[in-house]
Amino acid sequence: MKKIIYYVATSIDGFIAGPNEDISGFVASGEGVNTYLEDLKDFKTVIMGRKTYEFGYKYGLVAGQPAYPHMQHYIFSLGLQFENQSSQVHICKLEVDIVKDLKAKSETDIYMCGGGKFAGWLLDHELIDVVKIKFNPLVLGDGIRLFGTSKKPHQLKLLSSKAFEDGLTINEYQIQYL
Amino acid sequence: MKKIIYYVATSIDGFIAGPNEDISGFVASGEGVNTYLEDLKDFKTVIMGRKTYEFGYKYGLVAGQPAYPHMQHYIFSLGLQFENQSSQVHICKLEVDIVKDLKAKSETDIYMCGGGKFAGWLLDHELIDVVKIKFNPLVLGDGIRLFGTSKKPHQLKLLSSKAFEDGLTINEYQIQYL
Repeated sequence: MKKIIYYVATSIDGFIAGPNEDISGFVASGEGVNTYLEDLKDFKTVIMGRKTYEFGYKYGLVAGQPAYPHMQHYIFSLGLQFENQSSQVHICKLEVDIVKDLKAKSETDIYMCGGGKFAGWLLDHELIDVVKIKFNPLVLGDGIRLFGTSKKPHQLKLLSSKAFEDGLTINEYQIQYL
Repeated sequence: MKKIIYYVATSIDGFIAGPNEDISGFVASGEGVNTYLEDLKDFKTVIMGRKTYEFGYKYGLVAGQPAYPHMQHYIFSLGLQFENQSSQVHICKLEVDIVKDLKAKSETDIYMCGGGKFAGWLLDHELIDVVKIKFNPLVLGDGIRLFGTSKKPHQLKLLSSKAFEDGLTINEYQIQYL
Protein backbone atom coordinates (compact mmCIF):
# COMPACT_ATOMS: atom_id res chain seq x y z
CA MET A 1 0.00 0.00 0.00
CA LYS A 2 1.52 3.30 -1.09
CA LYS A 3 1.12 6.54 0.84
CA ILE A 4 -0.73 9.67 -0.19
CA ILE A 5 1.49 12.65 0.53
CA TYR A 6 -0.20 16.06 0.57
CA TYR A 7 2.78 18.26 -0.37
CA VAL A 8 1.63 21.83 -0.26
CA ALA A 9 2.59 25.45 0.32
CA THR A 10 0.77 27.41 3.02
CA SER A 11 0.96 30.77 4.72
CA ILE A 12 1.73 30.66 8.46
CA ASP A 13 -2.00 31.13 9.11
CA GLY A 14 -3.05 28.06 7.16
CA PHE A 15 -4.05 29.27 3.69
CA ILE A 16 -2.85 27.57 0.49
CA ALA A 17 -3.97 30.56 -1.59
CA GLY A 18 -5.40 33.99 -0.91
CA PRO A 19 -8.69 35.37 -2.20
CA ASN A 20 -9.19 34.77 -5.96
CA GLU A 21 -6.65 31.92 -5.83
CA ASP A 22 -3.85 34.49 -5.41
CA ILE A 23 -0.48 32.83 -4.79
CA SER A 24 1.68 35.84 -5.69
CA GLY A 25 3.03 36.17 -2.14
CA PHE A 26 4.41 32.63 -2.01
CA VAL A 27 8.13 31.96 -2.39
CA ALA A 28 8.72 31.12 -6.08
CA SER A 29 12.43 30.34 -6.19
CA GLY A 30 15.37 29.41 -4.01
CA GLU A 31 16.78 26.49 -2.11
CA GLY A 32 13.46 25.43 -0.53
CA VAL A 33 11.62 25.50 -3.85
CA ASN A 34 14.45 23.50 -5.46
CA THR A 35 14.15 20.89 -2.70
CA TYR A 36 10.43 20.60 -3.43
CA LEU A 37 11.05 20.23 -7.18
CA GLU A 38 13.71 17.61 -6.49
CA ASP A 39 11.29 15.72 -4.20
CA LEU A 40 8.67 15.63 -6.97
CA LYS A 41 10.96 13.41 -9.04
CA ASP A 42 10.20 10.55 -6.62
CA PHE A 43 6.52 10.44 -7.58
CA LYS A 44 5.12 8.66 -10.60
CA THR A 45 1.49 9.30 -9.61
CA VAL A 46 -0.25 12.58 -8.87
CA ILE A 47 -3.83 13.13 -7.69
CA MET A 48 -5.68 16.42 -7.56
CA GLY A 49 -9.07 18.07 -7.60
CA ARG A 50 -10.53 19.62 -10.72
CA LYS A 51 -9.91 23.21 -9.67
CA THR A 52 -6.25 22.54 -9.01
CA TYR A 53 -5.84 21.01 -12.47
CA GLU A 54 -7.61 23.93 -14.12
CA PHE A 55 -5.51 26.37 -12.05
CA GLY A 56 -2.57 25.10 -14.11
CA TYR A 57 -4.08 26.66 -17.26
CA LYS A 58 -2.93 30.06 -15.95
CA TYR A 59 0.63 28.75 -16.10
CA GLY A 60 0.50 27.25 -19.57
CA LEU A 61 -0.97 23.82 -18.90
CA VAL A 62 -2.90 22.56 -21.94
CA ALA A 63 -6.28 20.99 -21.12
CA GLY A 64 -6.04 17.20 -21.14
CA GLN A 65 -2.25 17.15 -20.91
CA PRO A 66 -0.07 16.22 -17.91
CA ALA A 67 1.12 18.98 -15.58
CA TYR A 68 4.07 16.80 -14.53
CA PRO A 69 5.50 14.95 -17.56
CA HIS A 70 6.83 11.96 -15.58
CA MET A 71 3.61 11.28 -13.65
CA GLN A 72 0.27 9.56 -14.21
CA HIS A 73 -2.48 12.10 -13.39
CA TYR A 74 -5.73 11.21 -11.63
CA ILE A 75 -8.09 14.19 -11.57
CA PHE A 76 -11.10 13.86 -9.31
CA SER A 77 -14.07 15.44 -11.00
CA LEU A 78 -17.66 14.68 -11.94
CA GLY A 79 -17.90 16.67 -15.13
CA LEU A 80 -14.45 17.20 -16.60
CA GLN A 81 -13.98 16.20 -20.25
CA PHE A 82 -11.24 16.92 -22.77
CA GLU A 83 -11.10 16.97 -26.57
CA ASN A 84 -7.50 15.80 -26.56
CA GLN A 85 -6.74 13.65 -23.56
CA SER A 86 -3.23 12.32 -22.91
CA SER A 87 -2.94 8.67 -21.93
CA GLN A 88 -1.29 9.96 -18.75
CA VAL A 89 -4.43 11.85 -17.70
CA HIS A 90 -7.35 10.05 -16.06
CA ILE A 91 -10.64 11.45 -14.78
CA CYS A 92 -11.94 9.78 -11.61
CA LYS A 93 -15.10 9.89 -9.54
CA LEU A 94 -14.69 11.05 -5.95
CA GLU A 95 -15.08 7.64 -4.32
CA VAL A 96 -13.13 6.13 -1.44
CA ASP A 97 -12.60 2.81 -3.25
CA ILE A 98 -11.08 4.51 -6.28
CA VAL A 99 -8.53 6.28 -4.07
CA LYS A 100 -7.79 3.06 -2.16
CA ASP A 101 -7.31 1.25 -5.45
CA LEU A 102 -4.76 3.88 -6.54
CA LYS A 103 -2.91 3.45 -3.24
CA ALA A 104 -2.77 -0.29 -3.84
CA LYS A 105 -1.64 -0.06 -7.46
CA SER A 106 0.63 3.00 -7.68
CA GLU A 107 4.27 2.28 -8.42
CA THR A 108 5.39 5.02 -6.00
CA ASP A 109 3.91 7.04 -3.16
CA ILE A 110 1.24 9.38 -4.48
CA TYR A 111 1.72 13.12 -4.76
CA MET A 112 -1.44 14.93 -3.71
CA CYS A 113 -1.07 18.48 -5.01
CA GLY A 114 -4.37 20.05 -3.97
CA GLY A 115 -6.61 21.71 -3.55
CA GLY A 116 -8.02 22.43 -0.11
CA LYS A 117 -11.48 21.00 -0.79
CA PHE A 118 -10.13 17.70 -2.12
CA ALA A 119 -7.61 17.57 0.77
CA GLY A 120 -10.44 18.01 3.28
CA TRP A 121 -12.43 15.20 1.68
CA LEU A 122 -9.40 12.89 1.70
CA LEU A 123 -8.65 13.78 5.35
CA ASP A 124 -12.24 13.18 6.44
CA HIS A 125 -11.99 9.72 4.83
CA GLU A 126 -8.60 9.09 6.46
CA LEU A 127 -6.90 8.65 3.10
CA ILE A 128 -3.99 11.10 3.46
CA ASP A 129 -0.97 9.52 5.14
CA VAL A 130 1.54 12.36 5.23
CA VAL A 131 1.26 16.15 5.10
CA LYS A 132 4.40 17.84 3.85
CA ILE A 133 4.06 21.58 4.30
CA LYS A 134 6.09 24.36 2.83
CA PHE A 135 5.44 27.05 5.43
CA ASN A 136 5.80 30.31 3.52
CA PRO A 137 6.85 33.55 5.19
CA LEU A 138 3.54 35.31 4.84
CA VAL A 139 0.21 35.94 6.52
CA LEU A 140 -2.75 35.71 4.15
CA GLY A 141 -5.73 36.34 6.43
CA ASP A 142 -8.22 34.92 3.95
CA GLY A 143 -8.49 32.51 1.04
CA ILE A 144 -8.43 28.73 0.57
CA ARG A 145 -7.72 26.79 3.73
CA LEU A 146 -5.25 23.89 3.98
CA PHE A 147 -8.07 21.37 4.39
CA GLY A 148 -10.94 23.37 2.90
CA THR A 149 -14.00 23.24 5.09
CA SER A 150 -13.02 20.05 6.96
CA LYS A 151 -13.43 20.61 10.70
CA LYS A 152 -12.24 17.38 12.28
CA PRO A 153 -9.08 17.61 14.42
CA HIS A 154 -6.17 15.21 13.98
CA GLN A 155 -2.94 14.62 15.86
CA LEU A 156 0.24 14.47 13.79
CA LYS A 157 3.76 13.21 14.25
CA LEU A 158 6.60 15.45 13.08
CA LEU A 159 8.86 13.36 10.83
CA SER A 160 11.27 16.03 9.59
CA SER A 161 11.78 19.77 9.46
CA LYS A 162 14.13 21.88 7.42
CA ALA A 163 14.40 25.65 7.04
CA PHE A 164 15.80 27.32 3.90
CA GLU A 165 17.36 30.67 3.08
CA ASP A 166 14.45 31.62 0.82
CA GLY A 167 12.26 31.68 3.95
CA LEU A 168 10.54 28.33 3.47
CA THR A 169 10.36 25.73 6.20
CA ILE A 170 9.43 22.27 4.93
CA ASN A 171 7.87 20.13 7.66
CA GLU A 172 6.75 16.56 7.13
CA TYR A 173 4.01 15.14 9.38
CA GLN A 174 2.42 11.71 9.62
CA ILE A 175 -1.30 11.83 10.38
CA GLN A 176 -2.28 9.76 13.42
CA TYR A 177 -5.80 8.51 12.78
CA LEU A 178 -7.39 7.30 16.01
CA MET B 1 11.57 51.51 20.75
CA LYS B 2 11.06 47.96 21.95
CA LYS B 3 9.47 45.23 19.84
CA ILE B 4 6.17 43.49 20.33
CA ILE B 5 6.71 39.76 19.89
CA TYR B 6 3.61 37.63 19.36
CA TYR B 7 4.86 34.31 20.75
CA VAL B 8 2.14 31.77 20.24
CA ALA B 9 1.28 28.12 19.67
CA THR B 10 -0.71 27.18 16.57
CA SER B 11 -1.88 24.08 14.77
CA ILE B 12 -0.45 23.59 11.26
CA ASP B 13 -3.72 24.99 9.88
CA GLY B 14 -3.47 28.28 11.75
CA PHE B 15 -5.58 27.91 14.88
CA ILE B 16 -4.35 28.97 18.34
CA ALA B 17 -7.17 27.01 20.00
CA GLY B 18 -9.94 24.71 18.89
CA PRO B 19 -13.67 25.20 19.45
CA ASN B 20 -14.51 26.15 23.07
CA GLU B 21 -10.94 27.37 23.58
CA ASP B 22 -9.74 23.75 23.57
CA ILE B 23 -5.93 23.50 23.71
CA SER B 24 -5.78 19.87 24.83
CA GLY B 25 -4.12 18.73 21.60
CA PHE B 26 -1.17 21.11 21.94
CA VAL B 27 2.24 19.87 23.06
CA ALA B 28 2.44 20.51 26.82
CA SER B 29 5.95 19.36 27.70
CA GLY B 30 9.32 18.59 26.17
CA GLU B 31 12.32 20.34 24.73
CA GLY B 32 10.35 22.82 22.60
CA VAL B 33 8.10 23.83 25.49
CA ASN B 34 11.18 24.26 27.71
CA THR B 35 12.75 26.53 25.09
CA TYR B 36 9.61 28.66 25.10
CA LEU B 37 9.59 28.86 28.91
CA GLU B 38 13.26 29.80 28.89
CA ASP B 39 12.60 32.50 26.27
CA LEU B 40 9.87 34.02 28.47
CA LYS B 41 12.52 34.93 31.07
CA ASP B 42 13.75 37.66 28.70
CA PHE B 43 10.49 39.62 28.92
CA LYS B 44 9.59 42.02 31.71
CA THR B 45 6.41 43.21 30.00
CA VAL B 46 3.45 41.18 28.77
CA ILE B 47 0.37 42.41 26.90
CA MET B 48 -2.78 40.44 26.25
CA GLY B 49 -6.49 40.68 25.53
CA ARG B 50 -9.09 40.22 28.25
CA LYS B 51 -10.14 36.75 27.15
CA THR B 52 -6.58 35.49 27.24
CA TYR B 53 -6.13 36.80 30.79
CA GLU B 54 -9.40 35.22 31.91
CA PHE B 55 -8.43 31.96 30.17
CA GLY B 56 -5.70 31.72 32.82
CA TYR B 57 -8.35 31.28 35.54
CA LYS B 58 -8.81 27.67 34.30
CA TYR B 59 -5.17 27.07 35.18
CA GLY B 60 -5.20 28.62 38.66
CA LEU B 61 -4.62 32.30 37.87
CA VAL B 62 -6.22 34.49 40.56
CA ALA B 63 -8.17 37.47 39.17
CA GLY B 64 -6.11 40.65 39.43
CA GLN B 65 -2.80 38.83 39.94
CA PRO B 66 0.08 38.40 37.48
CA ALA B 67 0.16 35.31 35.27
CA TYR B 68 3.94 35.68 34.91
CA PRO B 69 5.48 36.72 38.27
CA HIS B 70 8.46 38.56 36.75
CA MET B 71 6.44 40.66 34.26
CA GLN B 72 4.34 43.82 34.26
CA HIS B 73 0.92 42.94 32.80
CA TYR B 74 -1.07 45.21 30.50
CA ILE B 75 -4.51 43.79 29.82
CA PHE B 76 -6.47 45.45 27.06
CA SER B 77 -10.12 45.62 28.04
CA LEU B 78 -12.93 48.12 28.32
CA GLY B 79 -14.75 46.68 31.28
CA LEU B 80 -12.37 44.57 33.36
CA GLN B 81 -12.19 45.39 37.09
CA PHE B 82 -10.69 43.54 40.06
CA GLU B 83 -11.31 43.63 43.79
CA ASN B 84 -7.69 42.87 44.53
CA GLN B 85 -5.41 44.20 41.86
CA SER B 86 -1.66 43.59 41.96
CA SER B 87 0.57 46.57 41.26
CA GLN B 88 1.96 44.47 38.37
CA VAL B 89 -1.44 44.33 36.66
CA HIS B 90 -2.71 47.25 34.58
CA ILE B 91 -5.94 47.58 32.61
CA CYS B 92 -5.61 49.52 29.34
CA LYS B 93 -7.93 50.88 26.70
CA LEU B 94 -7.47 49.48 23.20
CA GLU B 95 -5.80 52.54 21.71
CA VAL B 96 -2.84 52.74 19.34
CA ASP B 97 -1.12 55.47 21.38
CA ILE B 98 -1.25 53.40 24.55
CA VAL B 99 0.47 50.49 22.79
CA LYS B 100 3.06 52.80 21.24
CA ASP B 101 3.72 54.32 24.65
CA LEU B 102 4.36 50.85 26.06
CA LYS B 103 6.79 50.12 23.22
CA ALA B 104 8.64 53.33 24.02
CA LYS B 105 8.78 52.78 27.78
CA SER B 106 9.16 49.01 28.26
CA GLU B 107 12.46 47.86 29.73
CA THR B 108 12.52 44.80 27.44
CA ASP B 109 10.81 43.64 24.27
CA ILE B 110 7.14 42.99 24.92
CA TYR B 111 5.65 39.52 25.11
CA MET B 112 2.28 39.45 23.38
CA CYS B 113 0.60 36.26 24.53
CA GLY B 114 -2.78 36.46 22.81
CA GLY B 115 -5.42 36.11 21.86
CA GLY B 116 -6.30 36.01 18.20
CA LYS B 117 -8.67 38.99 18.27
CA PHE B 118 -6.14 41.26 20.00
CA ALA B 119 -3.39 39.97 17.67
CA GLY B 120 -5.52 40.86 14.63
CA TRP B 121 -6.13 44.37 15.96
CA LEU B 122 -2.42 44.88 16.64
CA LEU B 123 -1.52 43.54 13.18
CA ASP B 124 -4.05 45.78 11.45
CA HIS B 125 -2.44 48.75 13.23
CA GLU B 126 1.07 47.53 12.33
CA LEU B 127 2.07 47.25 15.98
CA ILE B 128 3.40 43.66 16.04
CA ASP B 129 7.07 43.45 15.06
CA VAL B 130 7.81 39.75 15.32
CA VAL B 131 5.67 36.60 15.21
CA LYS B 132 7.25 33.65 16.94
CA ILE B 133 5.22 30.55 16.25
CA LYS B 134 5.27 27.21 17.93
CA PHE B 135 3.88 25.05 15.12
CA ASN B 136 2.22 22.15 16.91
CA PRO B 137 1.84 18.73 15.30
CA LEU B 138 -1.92 18.86 14.92
CA VAL B 139 -4.71 19.86 12.59
CA LEU B 140 -7.58 21.65 14.36
CA GLY B 141 -9.96 22.46 11.52
CA ASP B 142 -11.85 25.05 13.54
CA GLY B 143 -11.46 27.42 16.47
CA ILE B 144 -9.64 30.70 17.14
CA ARG B 145 -7.46 31.87 14.27
CA LEU B 146 -3.90 33.16 14.65
CA PHE B 147 -4.97 36.72 13.84
CA GLY B 148 -8.67 36.46 14.65
CA THR B 149 -10.78 37.98 11.91
CA SER B 150 -8.00 40.15 10.43
CA LYS B 151 -7.91 39.70 6.66
CA LYS B 152 -5.00 41.83 5.52
CA PRO B 153 -2.01 39.96 4.01
CA HIS B 154 1.56 40.64 5.12
CA GLN B 155 4.94 39.46 3.94
CA LEU B 156 7.31 38.11 6.58
CA LYS B 157 11.01 37.45 6.88
CA LEU B 158 12.09 34.17 8.46
CA LEU B 159 14.60 34.98 11.21
CA SER B 160 15.08 31.54 12.76
CA SER B 161 13.64 28.03 12.78
CA LYS B 162 14.19 25.15 15.14
CA ALA B 163 12.49 21.77 15.36
CA PHE B 164 12.25 19.79 18.60
CA GLU B 165 11.76 16.16 19.55
CA ASP B 166 8.38 16.88 21.16
CA GLY B 167 7.10 17.74 17.66
CA LEU B 168 7.20 21.53 17.98
CA THR B 169 8.86 23.74 15.39
CA ILE B 170 9.53 27.26 16.65
CA ASN B 171 9.80 29.75 13.78
CA GLU B 172 10.51 33.44 14.25
CA TYR B 173 9.32 35.91 11.59
CA GLN B 174 9.71 39.65 11.24
CA ILE B 175 6.64 41.35 9.76
CA GLN B 176 7.43 43.47 6.71
CA TYR B 177 4.93 46.32 6.72
CA LEU B 178 4.82 48.00 3.31
